[in-house]
Amino acid sequence: MRLYNYWRSSASWRVRIALAHKGVPYEYAAVSLVKDGGEQHSDVYRALNPLMQVPTLAWEEEGVARRLTQSIAMLEYLEERHPTPPLLPRDPYLRARARQLAEVINSGIQPLQNLEPQRYVREELKGDAAAWTRHFIVRGMTALEEEARRTAGDFLVGDAVSFADVCLVPQMFATRRFAGGAEAFPTLARIEARCLALPAFQQAAPARQPDAPKEGA
Amino acid sequence: MRLYNYWRSSASWRVRIALAHKGVPYEYAAVSLVKDGGEQHSDVYRALNPLMQVPTLAWEEEGVARRLTQSIAMLEYLEERHPTPPLLPRDPYLRARARQLAEVINSGIQPLQNLEPQRYVREELKGDAAAWTRHFIVRGMTALEEEARRTAGDFLVGDAVSFADVCLVPQMFATRRFAGGAEAFPTLARIEARCLALPAFQQAAPARQPDAPKEGA
Repeated sequence: MRLYNYWRSSASWRVRIALAHKGVPYEYAAVSLVKDGGEQHSDVYRALNPLMQVPTLAWEEEGVARRLTQSIAMLEYLEERHPTPPLLPRDPYLRARARQLAEVINSGIQPLQNLEPQRYVREELKGDAAAWTRHFIVRGMTALEEEARRTAGDFLVGDAVSFADVCLVPQMFATRRFAGGAEAFPTLARIEARCLALPAFQQAAPARQPDAPKEGA
Repeated sequence: MRLYNYWRSSASWRVRIALAHKGVPYEYAAVSLVKDGGEQHSDVYRALNPLMQVPTLAWEEEGVARRLTQSIAMLEYLEERHPTPPLLPRDPYLRARARQLAEVINSGIQPLQNLEPQRYVREELKGDAAAWTRHFIVRGMTALEEEARRTAGDFLVGDAVSFADVCLVPQMFATRRFAGGAEAFPTLARIEARCLALPAFQQAAPARQPDAPKEGA
């Protein structure tokens, strides 16, 4: 499999965690979101991903080219094709809870902190894109902390890592980067620390990717 | 099951389609997004849904209260508990495609046309919320039309209705309401028409819900 992605993109990071967790080897194809105004806007990449976002997962199956966009669809695909070790609980309600908490991030927060709304606020509306991003991150993370306080175990859903945690870790990074810190979310920070002790989360970290800027550079 | 929802909310509409498709009976609990500044902000509702969004699905299982937010998590739960008739293909790659196209809408478009970003653009940024919404709908629907043109059959993924179509129909409504029309998306319009011929989609339509304004009122 080939993962078109960017070291710092949170949706890319989710898929890297899942691939590492399940031990699925892949080729790293870097797509710079900053070089030349963003390589995701090139005609070649747009053919792979019409929304011009990372990540895209591509592979061949019996000679047929396969292509997937949308990180949650990739997580579900990897879970079906490589069920062990799992990233969803077995109980149907708990599976739904894991998906719910993943979606609070995936559709409730991340789309609003993404590049294009930030650009639109800054360039078209001449507004404060940092304040915009902070507003939506704090709003969403407050809801997620509330859900976590009620039902989390060692991880967001019980005592095993799930889709929800896979989405949480990159979102904590974005929260520190864009919203000035994560002190207001102690339950989420506790779970993040637990995740970061796992090898899959360490391997997937932005700083360890080939397109990350070299230290001191 | 009780579905807390609002007649015109597109995420609510998705879940109503899935419940009708699978023949799952439910109690309709109306949450007005307009009355008194939005009933979704009440303390009672916020306890059910900390993000203060519709829909929320609630039920009891062996005396234990269950609660789910996030429409995609609900679709997945209903698919697991009531697999027939299905809303996902059997082939893993096609399942992933259905989820991908659902997510292009669920995370790629809908969060940006939602009430809170519209309010923020209008009230905090003194910007043109209609232009904002139109921009993100056209951007997302253009990508979805491109995907559909390449691989659609009678429905978005092959010849059977899936999560992708469940998300498409409410999004077409939003496209006409907020983006001035859907003429630029002929493949999507063809599939929408096919969906609207199905009883489940008809039963779930906003105008047929108990909290819809009465005609002529």
